[in-house]
Amino acid sequence: MQVWKDYQAKNKDRFLEELLSLLRIPSVSADSRHNEDTKRCAEAVKERLIEAGAEKVEVCPTAGHPIVYGEKIIDANLPTVLVYGHYDVQPPDPLELWHSGPFEPVIKDGKIYARGSADDKGQFYMHVKAVETMIATNTLPCNVKFMIEGEEEVGSANLGIFIKENKERLKADVVLISDTAMISLENPSIDTGLRGLSYMEVEVTGPNRDLHSGVYGGAVANPATILCQMIASLHDKDNHITIPGFYDDVVDLSDAERKALNSAPFDLKEYITDLEIADVWGEKGYSVFERTGTRPTLEVNGIWGGYTGEGAKTVLPSKAYAKISMRLVPNQDNHKISDLFKAHFEKIAPNNVKVKVTPHHGGNPYVTPTDHVAFKAANKAYAATFGKEPIPVRGGGSIPIVALFEKELGLKTVLMGFGLDSDNLHSPNEKFDLANFYKGIETIPYFHQYFTEMSKK
Amino acid sequence: MQVWKDYQAKNKDRFLEELLSLLRIPSVSADSRHNEDTKRCAEAVKERLIEAGAEKVEVCPTAGHPIVYGEKIIDANLPTVLVYGHYDVQPPDPLELWHSGPFEPVIKDGKIYARGSADDKGQFYMHVKAVETMIATNTLPCNVKFMIEGEEEVGSANLGIFIKENKERLKADVVLISDTAMISLENPSIDTGLRGLSYMEVEVTGPNRDLHSGVYGGAVANPATILCQMIASLHDKDNHITIPGFYDDVVDLSDAERKALNSAPFDLKEYITDLEIADVWGEKGYSVFERTGTRPTLEVNGIWGGYTGEGAKTVLPSKAYAKISMRLVPNQDNHKISDLFKAHFEKIAPNNVKVKVTPHHGGNPYVTPTDHVAFKAANKAYAATFGKEPIPVRGGGSIPIVALFEKELGLKTVLMGFGLDSDNLHSPNEKFDLANFYKGIETIPYFHQYFTEMSKK
Repeated sequence: MQVWKDYQAKNKDRFLEELLSLLRIPSVSADSRHNEDTKRCAEAVKERLIEAGAEKVEVCPTAGHPIVYGEKIIDANLPTVLVYGHYDVQPPDPLELWHSGPFEPVIKDGKIYARGSADDKGQFYMHVKAVETMIATNTLPCNVKFMIEGEEEVGSANLGIFIKENKERLKADVVLISDTAMISLENPSIDTGLRGLSYMEVEVTGPNRDLHSGVYGGAVANPATILCQMIASLHDKDNHITIPGFYDDVVDLSDAERKALNSAPFDLKEYITDLEIADVWGEKGYSVFERTGTRPTLEVNGIWGGYTGEGAKTVLPSKAYAKISMRLVPNQDNHKISDLFKAHFEKIAPNNVKVKVTPHHGGNPYVTPTDHVAFKAANKAYAATFGKEPIPVRGGGSIPIVALFEKELGLKTVLMGFGLDSDNLHSPNEKFDLANFYKGIETIPYFHQYFTEMSKK
Repeated sequence: MQVWKDYQAKNKDRFLEELLSLLRIPSVSADSRHNEDTKRCAEAVKERLIEAGAEKVEVCPTAGHPIVYGEKIIDANLPTVLVYGHYDVQPPDPLELWHSGPFEPVIKDGKIYARGSADDKGQFYMHVKAVETMIATNTLPCNVKFMIEGEEEVGSANLGIFIKENKERLKADVVLISDTAMISLENPSIDTGLRGLSYMEVEVTGPNRDLHSGVYGGAVANPATILCQMIASLHDKDNHITIPGFYDDVVDLSDAERKALNSAPFDLKEYITDLEIADVWGEKGYSVFERTGTRPTLEVNGIWGGYTGEGAKTVLPSKAYAKISMRLVPNQDNHKISDLFKAHFEKIAPNNVKVKVTPHHGGNPYVTPTDHVAFKAANKAYAATFGKEPIPVRGGGSIPIVALFEKELGLKTVLMGFGLDSDNLHSPNEKFDLANFYKGIETIPYFHQYFTEMSKK
């Protein structure tokens, strides 16, 4: 609509300035040294929601980082959209690889470089500005509720409790999230599913103290060596995961689904060149899209043990550790998988080491019902602003709480991601393209309009 | 001799105080942040040698940490003993496991707890005090030279150069070193050999940046996983090392030698209990003494990659690293082994990662000629103060420069170690028993006396 266009054109610089100020707050949820920053960030989100025209805006304390709630109810009889997002961000390290400060946003070649620019400050903020646009131009067609949390990057441990305690307040017809990516501005896509997650930490203990590797080496099991052997055994030569029962609940895609998925535009050469790798890797018999979207995986996210400082230390370490996470697909259950991993990892440990397995967090996979009115409305919204229908794709990432919304609130979720896979999420030099930021703000109001119209029918 | 006994009894507290002051200097050679401390420690050693009666004492600069030289020449026609030791120490980390500050020595239950107490400040200082004893009582029977270096824990890179440039000044009849352990005060032992060392650092690179483990996981080789697989493949199921040619030059012990070695008193149950492990580990077909003394080994000294901080980060790391060292036995050559390792490690790397292998330092194994007059003199010295002949054993550790002394100076080395395997060398809470410290000071003069007498014959 022209009024939206005009309003957004008039305010586009302010929209950006406001986002940059949010990006300057290092709201790293995983690092307790940043607890004050996450608090500060929640307060800033509250202020922005109020300025945008939301009401009953509140920073809701939890056992962890607070959740920011706000709403704009225009008519109880109209449909309600619950917008979810998160203001917390991933740790920025390794810092030395950033070209500019992770919390000193810079704009280069039409891209905003900062931790959280795409994941998820830049994306949830598109909704704040889209709703502001509709309120300011008296065109808001339905009710809107905002729930912006601060623990998505650490497993949303307290969001589930908040939802259980606020079912009335969170009543809605659909959940709308922008925390995923699209193929490109030329080829808009929409996620029809997300992978689940099971994140474990393992500790392998050998001798009760670090030992001289000469005096004891050869006679005492080295926990670093043993950990490597255990991790190596988790994949077979075809890169299948060897945990017994791991694949039992995996729903295989139909040939038609595989065909549709693999028909999405993809340039393997460009993919390889961008990552500077000689070749892709993965489970035998599946394409890159299938490996990242529809197949479960097991990754070592971190490993450490022994002497890792400058120079050489001839030590046989007492302990070695690893952070290992698994991405899950329908119908795997993250609790069941965590239990299978723990049992298997303890079982394969040789008797001359002790093993401790601790689950960090997890979430179940999710598949969007493509026949849902909100999904159709989203498709129509993309078509309105991009000039073409979005390509349905399966996202490889996880938003564990999507499954929770369905279970606790009985709500389906629509994933309107406007980022790109190349945004360096969770990596140094995370970025978000200005064009995508503005395109999102432009597209979202159409979703509200079509969803309201189509719901009435 | 009684005069020695009397002198040492009168001065024993001062001897200890002097050692403690040396232990308070954090002379960590591997960590450049301690370069000023190592300098300070070298100056302190110089002062101590002068006080003990040594002459021409000098702190000799090198490209790295300085070497302290001193001598006491009483008669050019008498034999000369070259005492070698090192004033540098291992890094103290992990600091949190120390019961008291690594550089704030405390005495508990008759033991000195401090980094360097046994390795090697406490042990080389026994020689300083033994020589002081002989000089002060006008009983020094031969010439003595001291060469105390500051880079033993980092591979003695500059000692070789110093030796080449000072062959005249270092002329001697034997090298005497106390930097190893004995079985116990009840069962004195003497090392008849040392293992060599080849220390490598490996870097495995996957994608050019850290990636989101959900977006890319499953399609891109994870360098941490690959590194684990590569390390796991370095041992077979019998814990033999799989590097082609690794064992080619290993000299197997004769049945008689194996029998003698295994006849040394050893309590497996106590060994296991002390380390709190369920069982020992190692190469199939060999005893603990053989595994640590006469067989080559490969140990992971450190491993790191990805996110190792608090909480969870779902990252697919760009790089993973490991420090891997091999202990060598006669007649393996450390350069040849380093080359074999590098070639093999590069060969087993899959094509979708890049591998960089960098050698840190190394040294060749050494076997003491048990028929050498100095070795016999050492045996007699132990007998004089312990009341029994020492048991011949093979040390698992390495003093790389021992082989160098033979090559460059044509000198054999005698290893009179007075530490214990349980001294926590290279570990938190390193200690040295006061009884062993004083026993060493008491025994060393007898070595000089017997060596001089037996050399005349």
